[in-house]
Amino acid sequence: MTRCPCEEEVLRRIRPTPEERAYIRTIGERLIEAVERSGMAKAMMVGSVARDTFVRGDRDLDIFMLFDPSLPREDLQEKGLSLARRIAEEFGATWREKYAEHPYINATINSLDIDLVPCYAVPSATEIKSAVDRTPFHTRYIRAHIGDYVDDVLLMKQFAKAGGVYGSDHMTEGFSGYLCEILTIYYGGFHPLLEAAACWKPGEVVDIEDHGTKSFEEPLVVIDPVDPERNVAAALSVSRMFEFVELARGYLEEPSEAFFCRPSSPPLSREVFARLLAARGTYLFAITFATPEYTPDTVVPQLRKSAESIRELLERSGFPANRLDVCMQKDRCMLLFELMANEVPVMRRHIGPPAWSRGNAAKFVAKYVDDEVLAGPYIEDGRYVVELPRTFTRAVDLLRSKALLDVALGKHVRRSMENGWTVSVGAGCWDREFAGFLSGFLERSSPLVRIRRITGK
Amino acid sequence: MTRCPCEEEVLRRIRPTPEERAYIRTIGERLIEAVERSGMAKAMMVGSVARDTFVRGDRDLDIFMLFDPSLPREDLQEKGLSLARRIAEEFGATWREKYAEHPYINATINSLDIDLVPCYAVPSATEIKSAVDRTPFHTRYIRAHIGDYVDDVLLMKQFAKAGGVYGSDHMTEGFSGYLCEILTIYYGGFHPLLEAAACWKPGEVVDIEDHGTKSFEEPLVVIDPVDPERNVAAALSVSRMFEFVELARGYLEEPSEAFFCRPSSPPLSREVFARLLAARGTYLFAITFATPEYTPDTVVPQLRKSAESIRELLERSGFPANRLDVCMQKDRCMLLFELMANEVPVMRRHIGPPAWSRGNAAKFVAKYVDDEVLAGPYIEDGRYVVELPRTFTRAVDLLRSKALLDVALGKHVRRSMENGWTVSVGAGCWDREFAGFLSGFLERSSPLVRIRRITGK
Repeated sequence: MTRCPCEEEVLRRIRPTPEERAYIRTIGERLIEAVERSGMAKAMMVGSVARDTFVRGDRDLDIFMLFDPSLPREDLQEKGLSLARRIAEEFGATWREKYAEHPYINATINSLDIDLVPCYAVPSATEIKSAVDRTPFHTRYIRAHIGDYVDDVLLMKQFAKAGGVYGSDHMTEGFSGYLCEILTIYYGGFHPLLEAAACWKPGEVVDIEDHGTKSFEEPLVVIDPVDPERNVAAALSVSRMFEFVELARGYLEEPSEAFFCRPSSPPLSREVFARLLAARGTYLFAITFATPEYTPDTVVPQLRKSAESIRELLERSGFPANRLDVCMQKDRCMLLFELMANEVPVMRRHIGPPAWSRGNAAKFVAKYVDDEVLAGPYIEDGRYVVELPRTFTRAVDLLRSKALLDVALGKHVRRSMENGWTVSVGAGCWDREFAGFLSGFLERSSPLVRIRRITGK
Repeated sequence: MTRCPCEEEVLRRIRPTPEERAYIRTIGERLIEAVERSGMAKAMMVGSVARDTFVRGDRDLDIFMLFDPSLPREDLQEKGLSLARRIAEEFGATWREKYAEHPYINATINSLDIDLVPCYAVPSATEIKSAVDRTPFHTRYIRAHIGDYVDDVLLMKQFAKAGGVYGSDHMTEGFSGYLCEILTIYYGGFHPLLEAAACWKPGEVVDIEDHGTKSFEEPLVVIDPVDPERNVAAALSVSRMFEFVELARGYLEEPSEAFFCRPSSPPLSREVFARLLAARGTYLFAITFATPEYTPDTVVPQLRKSAESIRELLERSGFPANRLDVCMQKDRCMLLFELMANEVPVMRRHIGPPAWSRGNAAKFVAKYVDDEVLAGPYIEDGRYVVELPRTFTRAVDLLRSKALLDVALGKHVRRSMENGWTVSVGAGCWDREFAGFLSGFLERSSPLVRIRRITGK
């Protein structure tokens, strides 16, 4: 396989050192031994360490503890956690309980970030009792099929990371590590994958084991080789998918190391932020409130849903948005709206029934004939219209009003907002905790455009 | 036939007096005699005088001069006009040439407004050579079928006039006199017509002679008994149709003379106009220019088309309109726009190709990557978007710019605007020549709502 010189250079930088690899594996094997010595469960390493596809400096190690499927769920949780805790303490780790679909233990041992996860040792991935039970099958599948593609997977992962499309969490909506692995194996390496991706269209299907059963709605469909019912790319948004596509096209046209370097531009200062915003002439509004005490994968989708509902309320109220975005930080969350107007006329048009709907038409006329209307009711293209005064003529008043609690907010978001929220306006939205997020919002561009502007090509 | 007392009252007011009727008929007959004495053409009275369906005080008399169909068109025009002129002079009239599809003579004799119209004496209405040839057939048809419905037609006409829905000209887009007559005859009187109309839906078909051939697109289809290819209600807009429908419903519910009285509210003063406009908080803009020297039926549709094109330009430029209207006066025309914004942010979003359209996507990125953009290009829901500065951030600047001449204006409107136009803003739109029009715009309501508000019911 021939590689561009820049790829060899990148590999030299990202391939784990033999010492690093040996060290992390040793720790892993000692943990497995400790689990199995208990006689309660089998254990295995999963994740990129187990598959040899981790990038230098990654400090993540996942140890799965496989219990007998006959064990009741509560027992699995109880026994699993107590075993994990015991082992963490045996290794002198600092640890804490975490929660995904089930609780697990996250421990720090010699600066490694280790997850000890109880799961069921089911006979096949189609018989899983919870999502974590599938992970060991993924590890086995990749181990069995990765062959000579270890370096290719490393390149693909680094390429996706640098392009900002790596990670299947709800904030990123990008490519998971497993997805990178499957795609690299399926297309036969990093370059063939890029060449295929350059021609992707929405609805692309990759079915590595030719399962060919279920059909999916997502823009990219990658049938899980170990579970035909599952789309490995389910979390991938159409935006991240095509950001990867444009990166692939750009890289094939002109390969360069820039595609493997995560850009690190410092966030905008308050002054530059204010200047950029003034140049746009738009109206920025930020809603901030205390971060609900749940994981980002629970909170972020709720932030998105809440922001969408508020955008609809704004639109209905005469304030169309150019863009919105959301950000979850440790202490506070932000919903950010860029509006095309901050004030609207008092008059709003209210559309009534068609004039041929006799009963509704009569009710509509009767309702407004004696009302304090600004004009109407009148008939326009066969429908009744009446022009009424509106409640909020300033966006900021609407955003500060209780009306916000009447729209479909996420459950935890609503609870937090019931304790209050802050509305910031214009340059006043700048906030140290959100500086990176706010900068990205104002300077938004696709990853390829960013690289082209940096490299000047 | 039983009538409401108010209808008897109205009839006493609007029925022509026997003297009036005799007088106008005498003049008509003398004109016919004069035409026929020339030996060049037959002649007949058409219109409401001939049908006895004119309302007291109407001073319109139409005399048609029917020439042999073998006469070439130019000869008809020349001979017709010279005969009409000679007769007008013989009667000591002041007269002028007018032009519809063909030229004709409009004469004033003893304060009567008389049209002398040359046409062809074709054997049937389906063989007409021009629209005016059809009129004698209408007169004959109504005369033959009107029977006892003369009073009903008078009521219907007065009802439509008072409701502002009478007249098939392009400004009104309402019910012509002939349409009123056909509908009254078809449904069997004024009351049965109202009862039917109360249940009309768009696409209603009235086919008095059961021709049942062609299908039409208009909201009300009334097949011409003398020409199955023609919809008598072709000029009726869906708004005027349903304004009549709501009047019919309102009258049947509570008959009153108010439905037969044209409301005569004086136009708003400049001060009240300014106050009402301020209460709406909207942004009013009036474009005025010299009236093209053509008839309203030529100019008004062009005004409408021009205003629609300008509305689209405004919308595209970030200035959505609540409403627009047009007005043609003797010296000047006005296009009136009520906008929801008078200023918009510099930033405008420009939507590009979908990211999967490889060639277009590459061109789009290449075009904007080095440009002075405000943000982007970025990928949103799979499409490229770029945020650019816009040319006009104030509506008034756009409306005063030459950009207006680049949209689809009517031909004569464009010619007039090429010599310049004026843009007035807000309360400054008030203008004595257009005071009635401007008042109607701000106080717009349907005819039934107006009556309900006047009568307090």
